[in-house]
Formats: sequence, structure tokens, C-alpha cells
Amino acid sequence: MEKIAGEIHQWIRKNKGKAVTLLQRLVQEKSVQGQESSAQAIVIEVCRELGLEIDIWEPDSKVLKENENFVSTRESFNDSPNVVACWKGKGGGRSIILNGHIDVVPEGDTIQWDCDPYEGKIENGKVYGRGTTDMKGGNVALLIAIEALQAAGIHLKGDVIFQSVIEEESGGAGTLAAILRGYKADAALIPEPTNMKIFPKQQGSMWFRLKIKGKSAHGGTRYEGVSAIEKSLYVIDVLRKLEEERNKRVKDPLYATIPIPLPINIGKIQGGNWPSSVPDLVTLEGRIGVGPEEGIHEVQEEMEKVLSTIKDKDSWFADHPVELEWYGARWVPGAIEEKHPFVQLIQKNYKDVTQKDAKLEASPWGTDGGLFTRVGNIPTVVFGPGTTEVAHHPNEYIYIDSMLDCAEIIALTLIDWCEKAK
Amino acid sequence: MEKIAGEIHQWIRKNKGKAVTLLQRLVQEKSVQGQESSAQAIVIEVCRELGLEIDIWEPDSKVLKENENFVSTRESFNDSPNVVACWKGKGGGRSIILNGHIDVVPEGDTIQWDCDPYEGKIENGKVYGRGTTDMKGGNVALLIAIEALQAAGIHLKGDVIFQSVIEEESGGAGTLAAILRGYKADAALIPEPTNMKIFPKQQGSMWFRLKIKGKSAHGGTRYEGVSAIEKSLYVIDVLRKLEEERNKRVKDPLYATIPIPLPINIGKIQGGNWPSSVPDLVTLEGRIGVGPEEGIHEVQEEMEKVLSTIKDKDSWFADHPVELEWYGARWVPGAIEEKHPFVQLIQKNYKDVTQKDAKLEASPWGTDGGLFTRVGNIPTVVFGPGTTEVAHHPNEYIYIDSMLDCAEIIALTLIDWCEKAK
Repeated sequence: MEKIAGEIHQWIRKNKGKAVTLLQRLVQEKSVQGQESSAQAIVIEVCRELGLEIDIWEPDSKVLKENENFVSTRESFNDSPNVVACWKGKGGGRSIILNGHIDVVPEGDTIQWDCDPYEGKIENGKVYGRGTTDMKGGNVALLIAIEALQAAGIHLKGDVIFQSVIEEESGGAGTLAAILRGYKADAALIPEPTNMKIFPKQQGSMWFRLKIKGKSAHGGTRYEGVSAIEKSLYVIDVLRKLEEERNKRVKDPLYATIPIPLPINIGKIQGGNWPSSVPDLVTLEGRIGVGPEEGIHEVQEEMEKVLSTIKDKDSWFADHPVELEWYGARWVPGAIEEKHPFVQLIQKNYKDVTQKDAKLEASPWGTDGGLFTRVGNIPTVVFGPGTTEVAHHPNEYIYIDSMLDCAEIIALTLIDWCEKAK
Repeated sequence: MEKIAGEIHQWIRKNKGKAVTLLQRLVQEKSVQGQESSAQAIVIEVCRELGLEIDIWEPDSKVLKENENFVSTRESFNDSPNVVACWKGKGGGRSIILNGHIDVVPEGDTIQWDCDPYEGKIENGKVYGRGTTDMKGGNVALLIAIEALQAAGIHLKGDVIFQSVIEEESGGAGTLAAILRGYKADAALIPEPTNMKIFPKQQGSMWFRLKIKGKSAHGGTRYEGVSAIEKSLYVIDVLRKLEEERNKRVKDPLYATIPIPLPINIGKIQGGNWPSSVPDLVTLEGRIGVGPEEGIHEVQEEMEKVLSTIKDKDSWFADHPVELEWYGARWVPGAIEEKHPFVQLIQKNYKDVTQKDAKLEASPWGTDGGLFTRVGNIPTVVFGPGTTEVAHHPNEYIYIDSMLDCAEIIALTLIDWCEKAK
């Protein structure tokens, strides 16, 4: 095995240029929501060269809509294909899904970028651009890992099912479609940008909208009205206490170093329309974290209950209850045991490749991992080469060495998990 | 005098239909900002019939801009004429300005109206419509008062200067233009909707905008950011305490029954743009009341000072100070002594006409009265027939009897103030 590991290491280092060029090509295709097909075309080309069995389809929103885990901001997935490419095993080994999303978030304000977000500039050992870290660099690591094994003449017993999915950034419809199409495996790995930390657990999250009512009046006689802004301060305070309560219950050592494991974030506030009128409506929009072992409905009910009790402390809310709406995006949480053999294998290979102990954590954000574990019943680990801090940010980048290290760790893990065939 | 008072009373009651028709005609002209000229045409027609000396001009924004009291939301007053009509006295008496604004605020959401806002429907002794109360009913009372005196064959010693001005609802550029054009008098009366209370003092007010900064981060790691919403809660609290402090100092008995004499109203809040991002900016817009005897700059400085000290309690504000901007509308406050002979005359005539004691109060909102007292140096009283509560509201109305009572009180006050000529 040591000889094979050495060969894989050598091959990956020697093919650094190939890996970087592939990443650059993927970054140059601006695969924001609805424009994924040209980036997928490159993925398909690479999978063909690897001799994989390729399945390309546009998810059917009619079918997806029947599943309670479906959320999306769009009605149709025409021209937004999912790609699944299978490296069939010889039989008798454990199978694995290697999943990465091809969609990227928009580049935002280009003035904040020091380079073209879709050029793929290389500087100081990094590739810059939208999607380098989140998560085209991770996808390249997956493909390079497969190619390295093939180059070493290795055949595996178990199937390796590579997935390049759409829609992760909008709630996971691409991965859900792959699950509903019947793709299953004994484990799944998603190389989202974790700074090479291993996330056996992933936080879920969902968005909420609150409407807080007041009573209008002239600002000069504001005592004749009821300010929805003042009432919203009370609601914000209630949410803060709910966050405190929820986080007191988190005992998971994976969250030991996280200041607020399951944050409730109020991201948007809007109320009133005239400086000298008492505002009669405030809208709050936010995001609540769902613990890896929590249920979506359980968390929704907890917030609903807390909001329904505020009338006991302020009778205004008895006649003017806060309206709560669960809207927009939602990410299902996911978790497997830290001692799960799949986690342990990645830990071991991380140490072999980097000579350092792997760090285990729980993700502070949602990924498609929740869908695999909760809907697909597939043990899933999120582990990838991207830099967490620059995901969704201007000047997003990835360290080339991290990408190669990650490819090496994944290649070794494939051998361990799926087993080398004779 | 009793005989004359009786004649005036009779004439006004007999001409109720004429007064109501004039009010309806004025309401039917939708004289919102920029569309005042057709309503002014009716005023001019009536003033011509009364034989007054008429001065019609479009205020010159270039001249106005040089005055520090000028505020407006528009650049030019083309097609928005001011009308001043003088009933010249025989000489030797005190002069008076009778001032009313012809502009109305927009009708707002017409679904909330039970009638056409610009029809002038009569029902149960009231005329309904935008501007009935604020303040075309008051303007009709002024014109009917003059006509009643003329019908009784009365000539006055002092000049009566009737003014139908634009722009009161946007900060008083019309009245300021009349002052700057040289119109002066020994007293001024503005029949704004006071529920027939006498306001020797009027609160001023001005708008402010606050920008409160935060630091953006992903909602899942909100502890890495600083929420501008949370910081704005602190700023709102500081404003609440400032309001408390300011109102503790108000000892004026005219404010004795007012819960918050000088309110600070936060009318608008807006912050953040994504539910799962930590918001890095919140904007608050509001209105601060300026006491009748306070200076505009003095109040501005007080708020600026309070905001500059919050960094002592929260060091975030040292590096990220709250930005304060004085923008938009502003109304100069005004005051005359309660014992001023002009106030006493109105009080006496109110009692004579209604058989009740007049109520003296200080207005909770700004009027053009502040410009007269502060800029024109003219003792001013605000006293009018409109219903305070429905000003700027859907289904605005005025009691016809109040309008006639007010006309009668004004007519008698003109005789007392300007003196009957032989």
C-alpha cells in the first residue's frame, strides 16, 4: 500500500498543472443559477475521458415538488442538467458517492474584486475567482483522485459515483433529484470548503419572516400610536433569548470551540415609510440554525411556541400576533457518528498525507449532506480543500496545494473504502 | 357692538350654503404639491369679488435658497403661485395677516376612503374630503369672515392681509416667500385644524437620518460579524432617553395634558439585505419635536452631543460613529405670550360665540406660525375649525358648524384688533 500511496502522491504532484487548468476552465464558465450547462459540459468531457458511465438529466420540478424536502427559487430546471458519472467497481466492495455542486453564487459588487471573478488568476500558490473555493476546487480534487487511481492501474471493488449537481446554493434540489433518481451508496463525501477540517455533522438552516404590527399616528402625537419598531425590539429580544436557550442545550464536543453553535441571525429589517409617522409594520427576515440531530419541524414549532407566548408579557400581541412565515431557502441538517469507519478512514489518510492530526468539527452552515443522510439514508462526511472564510466573498481563492492534498486523501480513502480489486 | 355681532352671526348662518359650496369647490381641486394653481384660481376669484388688492406670484427658489429657513423637496415653484389679497384699512389701526395653506397631502390609499377624496361629500353636518380639515375649511372661514364684515357695512382701520400659500406641508416655502416679499402685520392668525383650541405656541420639528454601521458575516457564523441591527437597538434606546430628558425640562402649563410634549419619533428603519448575512448597515429616519422657545440649532447640537457620547459605553462606536444627517422637512417653532392681547381677544370672542371657555394649548406639530414669529417677527396664533385627528387621514372631514363658528370668531376678532373705522 505504501508503494501505491507513493505513486498516487507523485502522479498528483506531477499533474498539478492539469488540475489547475481544469479548475481555471471551470471558473471561466460562470455557472450561477440557471447558467450551469457550459460548466457541466466540461465536467462531462472529463468524465468521458475517465471512461465513466454518464447520466445527464434536467431535474423534473413536478416530481421534486412532491417531496417535502424540495425548496427552490425557480419553477423549472430546463437547461440546468445534473451530471452523474459512475466508475463501476468489480463487485464486492463498498460504494461511495462523491458529490460536488457546480452552481456558484453571483460575484456581487465587482468593485470589491481585485481581479476578474471569472478569469481564474493564479498568484502566490492560489487560484482566484468565484467558485474556486465554493466548490469547483473540491470538484477538481474528486476528479483528480479518480484519475490518479486509474493512472496507478488500480481497480476498485465498490462503485464510485461522481455527482456534479446544480442548485446547492438555493437549497439542494440537484442533490435531491439525484437521490430521487435512485442513486445510493454506502457513504458520501462532499468536498465543500472546510479548510480541510472533517465535518461528520452539518448544521441545517432555514429562513423565516416575521411581521410585527403597530398602530399609525402622527409623529408629533406619537403617544396616540403604537410603534411597530418598538414592538420589534421586544421580538428581537425574544429571539435572542430563544437562541440562548437553544445553544445551552448543545453539548456536542464538535461545537466546543464555536461561540454560538446554532445562531439565529436577523439579516434584514424594514419598517415604516415616513419619518414623522408612527410605523405600523416592521418586517424581520432571518435564518435559524438547525442542529445536526434536530428536526426541521421541531425547530419550527419551538420558534412558533416562543412567539405565541409573548402576548403573556405584552398584551398588544394578543390582538396583534406576530406573523411567522417559513419562506425561501432551507437546508436539511445531517450527522453521522464521529467513530463511523468512514470518518476514521478520512482521519487516517489526512494524517498520512499531511503529517498532522485532522480536526473534526460540525459545520456552521448547511450543505447537501443533510439530504444524503436524512433523505437518502447515506452516511455523509463534508471535507474539502476550500477556504471557508472566502466562500461567497469577493476575491475568493483556493490554495492549489490544499486542492492536491485533498485529492490525495480522497484517492487513498477510495482505496480503503471501496477496496482494491485484484 | 352687540348689534353688529348679531348681524354677523345672522349673515354667516344665512350664508352657510355659500360657505359649504366654496369649500366643496376648493376640495374638488386636488391641490397637492405642484398642482395648486386651479385651487388658487378659485381663491383669486373670491378675493376679486371681495374687492381685495391681489398679488399673485410664483416664489423664486433662487431667492429662497439664500435664506437659512428654506427647506423644500422641489427645485422650482413654476405654476405654483402664492396669492396674497389685501383689504386695505382706513388707517390708524393694527394690521393682521390671515394665513392658510392651499396645498394638501396626497389622499394615500383610496381603498381606505369611504368616498371620493376629491368630491366634497356632505353627510351628518360634515364635509368630507382631502383638505377639508387641513386646511381649506380654515381658509373658507377666513374669507367668509371678511365677507361678513363687508356685508355688515364695516370698514376697518388696519389692513387685513389674506394669504393663500403653497408648500406648508413641505416645510413652509410659501409663507417664507410671503415674508421675504415684505408682507408684515401686527399679528397673524393661521386657522390650521386645532379643534378650535387656541395655540399661542407651536412646536417645531425636523427630520433626521441616522446610519449605524456593523460588520458583515455569514449568518451561520454571526459571531464573526457585528450586527448593525443590534447596534441600532442601542441607538434607539439612546434616543428614547434623550426624549425623556428633553421632556422632563418642559414645564409649560400649555403642555400639561400632553403625554410627550416633544416627541422623538422613529418613523422608518431599514437594514441588511439577506436573511442569512449579518447586516452591516441600518438606517433610521425620524422626526424630533422642537419646543416653541427652543432654537433649531440648539436641538440639533443636543442630539449630536448625545450620539457622540455613546462610544463611551460601547467602544464599537468609537471606530464606527453613527452618522447623523438633518435632511428633508423642517418646521420652525413659534410662540407668543399667553397673555398677549391678540390671544386674549380670540379667547373672548370664542367664549362670546360658543358660550364655552377656550382651551389654550401648544401644538404638537409644526405650522407656518414659526416662520411668522421667528423670521417675520409677527405675533402669531394658530386657531382653526378643522378636526385634528383626521388631518392627513383617510375620510378626512370638517364640521360645517365649526367652520361657521370659527368664521364668526375671526370676524369679531378682526373688528377688535383692526378697529372699526367711522
